[in-house]
Amino acid sequence: MTGDATGRYAGVRAAVVGTGLIGGSVLLRLADAGLDVAGWDPDPATRERARAAGLVTPDTIEQAVAGRDVVFLGGPLPTLPRTLARVAAATAPGCVLTDVGSTKVDVAEAADRLGLTDRFVPGHPMAGAESAGLTAASTTLLAGAAWVLCPAPAAATHAFRWLTGLLVELFGARVVPMSAPAHDSAAALASHVPHLLAGALAGAVQRAPVRDAVLALAAGSFRDGTRVAGTPAERTANMLLGNRARVLDELAEVSAFLGELAAALRAGDAAALTARYAEAAAARSALLDPRYAGRDREFRTDGDHAAEVSWLRGLGEEGGHLTGCQVDATTVSYTAWCPLAD
Amino acid sequence: MTGDATGRYAGVRAAVVGTGLIGGSVLLRLADAGLDVAGWDPDPATRERARAAGLVTPDTIEQAVAGRDVVFLGGPLPTLPRTLARVAAATAPGCVLTDVGSTKVDVAEAADRLGLTDRFVPGHPMAGAESAGLTAASTTLLAGAAWVLCPAPAAATHAFRWLTGLLVELFGARVVPMSAPAHDSAAALASHVPHLLAGALAGAVQRAPVRDAVLALAAGSFRDGTRVAGTPAERTANMLLGNRARVLDELAEVSAFLGELAAALRAGDAAALTARYAEAAAARSALLDPRYAGRDREFRTDGDHAAEVSWLRGLGEEGGHLTGCQVDATTVSYTAWCPLAD
Repeated sequence: MTGDATGRYAGVRAAVVGTGLIGGSVLLRLADAGLDVAGWDPDPATRERARAAGLVTPDTIEQAVAGRDVVFLGGPLPTLPRTLARVAAATAPGCVLTDVGSTKVDVAEAADRLGLTDRFVPGHPMAGAESAGLTAASTTLLAGAAWVLCPAPAAATHAFRWLTGLLVELFGARVVPMSAPAHDSAAALASHVPHLLAGALAGAVQRAPVRDAVLALAAGSFRDGTRVAGTPAERTANMLLGNRARVLDELAEVSAFLGELAAALRAGDAAALTARYAEAAAARSALLDPRYAGRDREFRTDGDHAAEVSWLRGLGEEGGHLTGCQVDATTVSYTAWCPLAD
Repeated sequence: MTGDATGRYAGVRAAVVGTGLIGGSVLLRLADAGLDVAGWDPDPATRERARAAGLVTPDTIEQAVAGRDVVFLGGPLPTLPRTLARVAAATAPGCVLTDVGSTKVDVAEAADRLGLTDRFVPGHPMAGAESAGLTAASTTLLAGAAWVLCPAPAAATHAFRWLTGLLVELFGARVVPMSAPAHDSAAALASHVPHLLAGALAGAVQRAPVRDAVLALAAGSFRDGTRVAGTPAERTANMLLGNRARVLDELAEVSAFLGELAAALRAGDAAALTARYAEAAAARSALLDPRYAGRDREFRTDGDHAAEVSWLRGLGEEGGHLTGCQVDATTVSYTAWCPLAD
């Protein structure tokens, strides 16, 4: 990444709780940017490792988050609601809270129950690796990532604006604003179903009598198609269970398309098979060659937060993202990009 | 790659017919190694492009292959039997023929019908790219690739030995010896079913109302899992149709595993889901961290070809490969590697 925090983010005091692959990468980058940042992990060995790397790592979660302006929450998905409650209790009301978990509805509902919607902004940086833990984390893992944030009206809008600016400045993030349910629907197809397919392919090969011959021939398609089958099994299970209904719905859509491909193959229908693959290739082209139009927008800082949030969520649901958020006394200015139609 | 052909392969006269991505990469590497090599493609524009790149490219297929010691056949799978017949008619009986197609039973049967089993060695270098055509070809695409060759008894054993040595020397290939049916079974899981899964995922997203939001969030798992959905649709269709029964059989196995994952997810059974992913991860570990024991073997050149071929096929079916084949007046010496049990 490119350097130190400047302007409104210089001097920010941050903390990261749960310093695995993603949380650890947030921690490393914030430290790299010269912020005063503390990390904490429930695993004493991970805390020792962080200390050995020169990172500030108090013994208790309360020491790590006290007096901070922003706290990032990582760690296993099922632990996030409890961690959120602990961190909220140990921080001031003005401290912005966000998480880096891969599903958003459950944690957003937990924040609602805890009365934290004014300062908790659900988040999900879209990055990962086959590996896990602080030892796999890096200052650059999240550089330039799509980073979902879920804006909500009222006070949470302030937290959203401030956090958006910070992620753009320090991570070069493309901030994708979405409601939590819209995120979980899109993530089902963008990430969770791909994990199911990878698991099924790798699992079937593991059971196949010809396993070793298959592995001997494995080139790009098998290596790529099974990569995320090697991620820690429990993490993957938590992710899928945290978005169960939507994942099963989207899996049904993917299975239906797979059924069409298999039917065309069984029938020896080259034209139908080619047509389905041309359809699939269109998604691939849109992915590889995205084209955007600018859609900058200003709102009054004291204006209608509901209209601002509605515009933001609409942008993300259209596949758009933010690369800037400037706030002055009267105006919030978003630098925004939206995909052009094919 | 590392340099010129030496020893027994210096001075070899080669040809490549069908100079797309794979054939073109063979051609470029052979030229790079200093061999006298000619290319030919049915597409005049491709021939022009090859000439512009300084490659020898006669106007007719007969001119390209006449007087050659070895001819590599590329091009669309359904055209291979006809191309094989044309090339056989235009070359001497001592000219070794091989192909680079992604299925092997059909072309092996065609060679049988044509009476060419003595000098045709079915082949399949396990490499590919999303792109197609000579412009995407490179001298290094096939470097170090697993390269299936299908040995057969009698005179074909001589061709197999000679070609194995050439591929090891000029491409750094790991030559995987298999029967054509064993190749097609293993390739169904190693390559063809992965193409179906990638097509289904990309196709379902293309049809999804939330397509643009999905693409905005797409990170590693979606990019990797759909990569081969972007390969030319007709090439993929030909590959699947060329191995139809085996692909459908193996797809049923993968679908069964997918069904187990979905059932565990539907039931909210974290333990079952984690156990299935642990099973899948074992295949991934075996893929990423292969460990081999040496299994060198010698045969008399005038000995029992059937025993030699049987040993070779057994090696490949166990996931093994060859990295050397030396032949002197009395002895053929294979340098061979076989995976250790987990």
